[in-house]
Amino acid sequence: MMYIKNPKEIEKRSFEIIGENIDEKRFDERELKIVKRVIHTTADFEFADILKISKEAIDTGIKAIKEGSNIVTDTKMAMAGINKKTLKRFGCDISCFIDAPEVLSLAKEKSITRSMASMIIASQDKKNKIFVIGNAPTALFQLAELIKSGILKPDLIIGVPVGFVGAAESKEEVKELGIPYIITEGRKGGSNIAAAIINALMYMIE
Amino acid sequence: MMYIKNPKEIEKRSFEIIGENIDEKRFDERELKIVKRVIHTTADFEFADILKISKEAIDTGIKAIKEGSNIVTDTKMAMAGINKKTLKRFGCDISCFIDAPEVLSLAKEKSITRSMASMIIASQDKKNKIFVIGNAPTALFQLAELIKSGILKPDLIIGVPVGFVGAAESKEEVKELGIPYIITEGRKGGSNIAAAIINALMYMIE
Repeated sequence: MMYIKNPKEIEKRSFEIIGENIDEKRFDERELKIVKRVIHTTADFEFADILKISKEAIDTGIKAIKEGSNIVTDTKMAMAGINKKTLKRFGCDISCFIDAPEVLSLAKEKSITRSMASMIIASQDKKNKIFVIGNAPTALFQLAELIKSGILKPDLIIGVPVGFVGAAESKEEVKELGIPYIITEGRKGGSNIAAAIINALMYMIE
Repeated sequence: MMYIKNPKEIEKRSFEIIGENIDEKRFDERELKIVKRVIHTTADFEFADILKISKEAIDTGIKAIKEGSNIVTDTKMAMAGINKKTLKRFGCDISCFIDAPEVLSLAKEKSITRSMASMIIASQDKKNKIFVIGNAPTALFQLAELIKSGILKPDLIIGVPVGFVGAAESKEEVKELGIPYIITEGRKGGSNIAAAIINALMYMIE
């Protein structure tokens, strides 16, 4: 069977098809790049409606990446999806603490989820400036608590947990924190989407 | 804010909500577990319509896992999403060859994608019995070619690449190979879904 084998060509043609299927005028040029990359990752056009990007999010996100900030993810899967080569060019580090021994013991001690404990541990290093939550609403709720209590003040929250219990509510809470955010309203989201958003921000700079 | 913090409780309640929103009678008990876990991963009910499980797929998949077969994924992301603890209990190994030096040189030499080259390299080890393709249509096309030319005869193909160029076609091709398969028809799919399907199979055995 004949098929396109050039990854760059596949991506270019994909983005054209996506553009033909959404109302591009609803977004500015940079927002559009995020929206299109998320749809590219999911083939789900609903993301054009539910992705919400706060006014300063792209500027602060790009600035943080250019400064080589640390990125924290809630899952190994989100971490795996972020382009490491590009990340390295900006000098950014990336961490996921979910399997760290101190997270396991903190979760046990406080009877909280490992996702929550991983946010508490991440908040202890002030170099962690971008928080990428793709899976666990409890991580996002915990992040919100750390911010509200003044322990943490990140540059950007990418908050796109998926699910039926708490996911939608956790993302609504992010809107009220006064921190730049990129979220998906409602139930949809995922680690793949979280990674796609960080990648879109990085590719904007290049 | 009050929220459910027990991961098991969250998952249980999520599966209940999913069950209330799909026609459960369309599936047998084991199929339903796969369908529900994929919807749990995406919050996208369309997967109840586009997931296609061939007649022998669940039996051969479970048998292969019980025998401790090797699993091959096309992306690090799919690999990251598969439950390693459970995998280890069955003695299964998991590999993703996308960054392997021999894949890079083969891709360059033959002017093919790294995804394609990774399938060729994976086909050289006969212990690789379950192929999990979550992202690259070219990987799935290449896998089909290896099977049609008699080089490879896996026990199960999980073929759920996502995208606008070749993804749907690559999955249709899988149906014609005479190999048990689990696919998503059309454009939708993804590494998260690929991982969810393997996890669903493993949790069925436990």
